[in-house]
Amino acid sequence: MEVGFLGLGIMGKAMAANLLRHGFRVTVWNRTLSKCDELVAMGAAVGDTPASVVAKCKYTIAMLSDPSAALSVVFDKDGVLEQIGEGKGYVDMSTVDAATSCKISEAVKQKGGAFVEAPVSGSKKPAEDGQLVILAAGDKALYDDMVPAFDVLGKKSFFLGEMGNGAKMKLVVNMIMGSMMNAFSEGLCLADKSGLSPQTLLDVLDLGAIANPMFKMKGPSMLQGSYNPAFPLKHQQKDMRLALSLGDENAVSMPVAAASNEAFKKARSLGLGDLDFSAVHEVLKGTGGQAKA
Amino acid sequence: MEVGFLGLGIMGKAMAANLLRHGFRVTVWNRTLSKCDELVAMGAAVGDTPASVVAKCKYTIAMLSDPSAALSVVFDKDGVLEQIGEGKGYVDMSTVDAATSCKISEAVKQKGGAFVEAPVSGSKKPAEDGQLVILAAGDKALYDDMVPAFDVLGKKSFFLGEMGNGAKMKLVVNMIMGSMMNAFSEGLCLADKSGLSPQTLLDVLDLGAIANPMFKMKGPSMLQGSYNPAFPLKHQQKDMRLALSLGDENAVSMPVAAASNEAFKKARSLGLGDLDFSAVHEVLKGTGGQAKA
Amino acid sequence: MEVGFLGLGIMGKAMAANLLRHGFRVTVWNRTLSKCDELVAMGAAVGDTPASVVAKCKYTIAMLSDPSAALSVVFDKDGVLEQIGEGKGYVDMSTVDAATSCKISEAVKQKGGAFVEAPVSGSKKPAEDGQLVILAAGDKALYDDMVPAFDVLGKKSFFLGEMGNGAKMKLVVNMIMGSMMNAFSEGLCLADKSGLSPQTLLDVLDLGAIANPMFKMKGPSMLQGSYNPAFPLKHQQKDMRLALSLGDENAVSMPVAAASNEAFKKARSLGLGDLDFSAVHEVLKGTGGQAKA
Amino acid sequence: MEVGFLGLGIMGKAMAANLLRHGFRVTVWNRTLSKCDELVAMGAAVGDTPASVVAKCKYTIAMLSDPSAALSVVFDKDGVLEQIGEGKGYVDMSTVDAATSCKISEAVKQKGGAFVEAPVSGSKKPAEDGQLVILAAGDKALYDDMVPAFDVLGKKSFFLGEMGNGAKMKLVVNMIMGSMMNAFSEGLCLADKSGLSPQTLLDVLDLGAIANPMFKMKGPSMLQGSYNPAFPLKHQQKDMRLALSLGDENAVSMPVAAASNEAFKKARSLGLGDLDFSAVHEVLKGTGGQAKA
Repeated sequence: MEVGFLGLGIMGKAMAANLLRHGFRVTVWNRTLSKCDELVAMGAAVGDTPASVVAKCKYTIAMLSDPSAALSVVFDKDGVLEQIGEGKGYVDMSTVDAATSCKISEAVKQKGGAFVEAPVSGSKKPAEDGQLVILAAGDKALYDDMVPAFDVLGKKSFFLGEMGNGAKMKLVVNMIMGSMMNAFSEGLCLADKSGLSPQTLLDVLDLGAIANPMFKMKGPSMLQGSYNPAFPLKHQQKDMRLALSLGDENAVSMPVAAASNEAFKKARSLGLGDLDFSAVHEVLKGTGGQAKA
Repeated sequence: MEVGFLGLGIMGKAMAANLLRHGFRVTVWNRTLSKCDELVAMGAAVGDTPASVVAKCKYTIAMLSDPSAALSVVFDKDGVLEQIGEGKGYVDMSTVDAATSCKISEAVKQKGGAFVEAPVSGSKKPAEDGQLVILAAGDKALYDDMVPAFDVLGKKSFFLGEMGNGAKMKLVVNMIMGSMMNAFSEGLCLADKSGLSPQTLLDVLDLGAIANPMFKMKGPSMLQGSYNPAFPLKHQQKDMRLALSLGDENAVSMPVAAASNEAFKKARSLGLGDLDFSAVHEVLKGTGGQAKA
Repeated sequence: MEVGFLGLGIMGKAMAANLLRHGFRVTVWNRTLSKCDELVAMGAAVGDTPASVVAKCKYTIAMLSDPSAALSVVFDKDGVLEQIGEGKGYVDMSTVDAATSCKISEAVKQKGGAFVEAPVSGSKKPAEDGQLVILAAGDKALYDDMVPAFDVLGKKSFFLGEMGNGAKMKLVVNMIMGSMMNAFSEGLCLADKSGLSPQTLLDVLDLGAIANPMFKMKGPSMLQGSYNPAFPLKHQQKDMRLALSLGDENAVSMPVAAASNEAFKKARSLGLGDLDFSAVHEVLKGTGGQAKA
Repeated sequence: MEVGFLGLGIMGKAMAANLLRHGFRVTVWNRTLSKCDELVAMGAAVGDTPASVVAKCKYTIAMLSDPSAALSVVFDKDGVLEQIGEGKGYVDMSTVDAATSCKISEAVKQKGGAFVEAPVSGSKKPAEDGQLVILAAGDKALYDDMVPAFDVLGKKSFFLGEMGNGAKMKLVVNMIMGSMMNAFSEGLCLADKSGLSPQTLLDVLDLGAIANPMFKMKGPSMLQGSYNPAFPLKHQQKDMRLALSLGDENAVSMPVAAASNEAFKKARSLGLGDLDFSAVHEVLKGTGGQAKA
C-alpha cells in the first residue's frame, strides 16, 4: 500500500518510520526538507510540496503541530487542495479543534476527495511503538481503506461517526483525566498533612482497583515538585473548558469537572501554565507556585 | 506458626482457609459455631470463646463485620481481654473507625498485650486469592511477627506507623476513588449527550493512561443502570465525609472531593444509598433514581 | 434638549415617556409604528425610519430587544448608519454582548459619529420610575452630553471607560446574583429538611446583615414553587457562562460561580430554562422539576 | 419585671443596660465583679453568685462568651442549678453548640425549672441599640413570659420550636452568609482582573436588587486588604462545616456551600483564621496571604 505522509515532527517521523518498517511505500514531505533524510535512508520517497505528494499517492496522511499548520498545508499555494479530488483520500491525524477539521473536510469534499479526521491518544513513545489509540471520524469508506495503516500506527482505531466526533472523544477523555489528576493531588495532600507518607499512598494505590498508568507515572515527580511538561497545564485547562462548553451546549451538569477546571485556572494564575498539567498539585499544596519544570 | 482467628464471615473464612493451606496451625472461633465446620475439615481447631482462643494462641487475628462486633469480641464476657496479656498479640483486620481501634488498642495495652490494626483493601475474591492489601499500624514488633501471616493473606502489607494510620489511609484511598467515580460518570454522561457512544468511551479509556480496574469493572453495569452493591453508596459517602473531616482538621482544601461528596449526598436523597456507589451515575444522568440493584 | 428614541418595547416606552415628562423634546421610532401613539399623545414627534430620526436629532438613544434588533436598526436600509456622522451621537441602551456593541461602535465611529453603550440594570418598574442604573462606556464626551438624559432615566449612571466595560460590569453583577440565588436556595432547603420553617428563615434573613431586595422578592414565590419569569433561567445561566469565560481569559478561579453554573445547567436539563432563574431551587429541592411558571 | 443577668461582657453589659433603661429591675452578676459597677450606677442590684441571682429572680438571662463559660455558670459550685427549680426560668442567650444547650436544658428541667435557648444575631452596636434578632427555642411558656424583655433587647424575636432549633437557624443563616461572601469576593476579583474598577462594582451593587448591609460594610475594607475581625474566619468556617454536617444528616446536597467551605479552609491553611471571615478574599485574589487585620 502506498501512502503520502505530511509532517515529520516527533510524532510524524515515528509514525512514518513505522509504516516503512511494515512494508508501506511512503512518500514524505516536511516544511524543513532535511528532516526527511532519516526516512529516505529507510526507503521513503520525498515530495517537493504537499500537492505533489497528493498527486502521487491515493492516500495522504498528515500529522502537523497545530491548527494553523494543518490549515496551511491544505489551503496554501502548492497545498493539498490543488491535487485532491475524486478517488483520493486525505487523513488528518493532527490534534485540532472541530472548526479546523470541519473547514478542511468541507474543502476536500468540495473538490471530490474524501476526508477523515483521526486525532490520536498517546505521545512519542506509543507513536514509536505503534501503540497509539486512533479516534477517527468522517468518511467511512476512506476509514475502511486506511485500516491497514491504522493497524500499524496504533494498537486500536475507532471509527466514531460524523466529523467532529474524534475531537469530541478526545475532550471527554481529557476531561476525565483532568478531574482524576485533581482527585489524585487532593489525596496526596491529605495524606501528607494527616501524617501519612504520600509515597506509601502511591504504593497502596498501585495495588488497588484504581491503579492506573497516570498515577504511576506522575506520582513520584509530583511528590518532588517536578513538572516536566508532557502535556502542558494550559492545554489541559483549555480542554476542560472546551469539554465544559460541550456540556453547556447539551445541558450536562458536571460539578466535579467544573471544580477541577477552577483549580487548573488557579494554577494558570500562579504562572504554572507551561508546566505539566500535574502542576495543579502546587495549587492544592498551597505553596503558591515554587514549582519547577 | 500458630494463630487464632476470630470471625468467619465471607472475608474471614477465606483468610483462615488461606492460612491453613499454607501450613499455619489455626484455631478458629465464630459466634455461630457451625460456620467453623468447613475449616475444621481443612484441619482447624476450634475455640469455644474468643478468650479460649487467645489463651491457646500467642497471636490472634480478628475479622469482624463492624465496629460493634469488633468491640463485643474484645470487651464482652469471655472476650479477648480476659486472656490477653504480656507476650500475646492481637491483630484486628476489620474495617472500623479510628475511635474503635484506639479503644481496643488501649485496653489490650493496659493488659500488657500488643495490638495492631490492619484493615484491608480488597473484597471476597482477593481474600480467597491471598491478594489483599494490608494497611497495618500500631505495635511494630507485633507487625514484624505477623509478616509471615500477612504474606499469605495479602499481596502486600504496609506498616503505617502510629495507631489510626491504617484507617486514615483507607479513607484517603476511598476519597480518591469516590472523586474518580464522579469524574468517570460525568464523562459517560457527556459522551452520551454529545452523540458519542459511551460504550466506545469505555473502550478508549481502557487503552489509555487512565485505564484502571474500577472503570473496567463498573463501566458496563453503569451503562445498564445496574448497581449491584459491592460497596454501598452510603458507605462511600460516609468515607468521603470522614476524609473531608480529616482535611478540615488539617486545613486541607479539597474542592473536587467536596463536589463529589455533594453528588453522593444527592444520590442518598434520591434513595440510592443501599445500591453500589457507582449509582451516583443516576444523579449525573438526572433520571431521578430509576436505578436497580 | 432634543433626543431621538428608537424602540418602544416595555422598557423603551417607559424611558421615552420619562424623557417627555421631564421636558425633553423626543422624536420616536418603532418598527410597529402604532406603538408610537401613546407617546405622541404625550408630545412626541415621530420619525419614519431610524435614519430620519438620526437626521433630525443630534443625539439618538436606542432600546432594542436583542442583538439582532440592535444590529438591524443600525446596519439595515434606512438605518442609523445612513445619517450618523460628525457632530452626532448614538447611545445604545439595549443589553447586548460585547461583540455586538463593538461592531456598532466601529461602524458609527468610521462615519465620524460618537458612540456610547449604556446597558441598564433594572426592569419595567424602575424604568417607569426613572430608577434604572446605567452602565455606560465608550465615548466620554458623548457620555457627558447625555448626563441630563441619564439623570432622568436612572437613579445613577456610571461611566466605565472603554467600550465593552458596560457589558462586562453587567456580567459581574449577574454572576454574583446567580451565586447568591444558589446560596439562598441551599439555605431554604437545609432549613426545610432540618425541621425549621423556611418562612421563618425568610423573616430572620430580612432582619440581618445579608437582607436584600432579591431574597425578599423571590423567597415567598420560591417556597410556593412558583417561578414567573422576571429573568429567565437560561439567560442567567448564559450570563454565568460568559462571566466564567471572562474569568478564564483572565485566569480568575471562581469555584463558587462554577458550582452555581452547574446547578443552573442542571435546571436547564430538567426543562426549567424558561422559568425564572429562581427555579434553580427545584434542582436543590431535588423534586426533578414539578415547577410552575 | 425583675430579671437576673449573668455575664457582663461587651454584649451582656449593653443588653443589661437596655433592660435597666426600659424600667426592668435587674440583678447582675459577673465573674469579675468590678464590671458590675457601671450598671449599679444605672440602678442594678448585684448578686454574689449565679445561684444567689437565681434565688432572688424568677427569670434569669445569661450572656456568656463560650460553651465552657455557659456550662460553668450552670454546673459549678454556686451555679444556677443550685437554685433553679419549679416556677423559675433560665434563658441562655450565649452562642453555643446544640450539645451544650441540650445539656443545660436537661439539667434545668430535671430540677423542675424551665429553659429557653435564645442565641442572637447581631453584635455590639445592635446590642446597644436593642436591635438584636433573637432566635429562641425550648419552653414555650417561658418564651412567652420573656417577650417583654426580648422586645427591649431585640427588634424581633422568633420562637422556633424544639431545643436546638435556635442554634440550627443560626447555622443556616451563617452558611448563606459564607457563600455570599465568596460570591462577592469572586465578583470583586473578576472585576479587578477584567479591567473594571472594584470600587465602582461596589457602587453598582449598592443600587441593585442584591444590595445588602454586608457588601456595603465589608466591601471597602476588603478592597484595602484589611480584615479587622468582627467575625473570625475560623468561626465562619466552623459554622459552614456544622451546616454541611446538618445537611449530611438530612441528605441535603449543597454544592455551593461545599465550594465556599473549601475556600474558607484554604484561607485557614494560609494562616488567615483569626482575621475577619472576609479575608477569604485573599484566597480568591491569590496573593497567598499578605493580609492584615
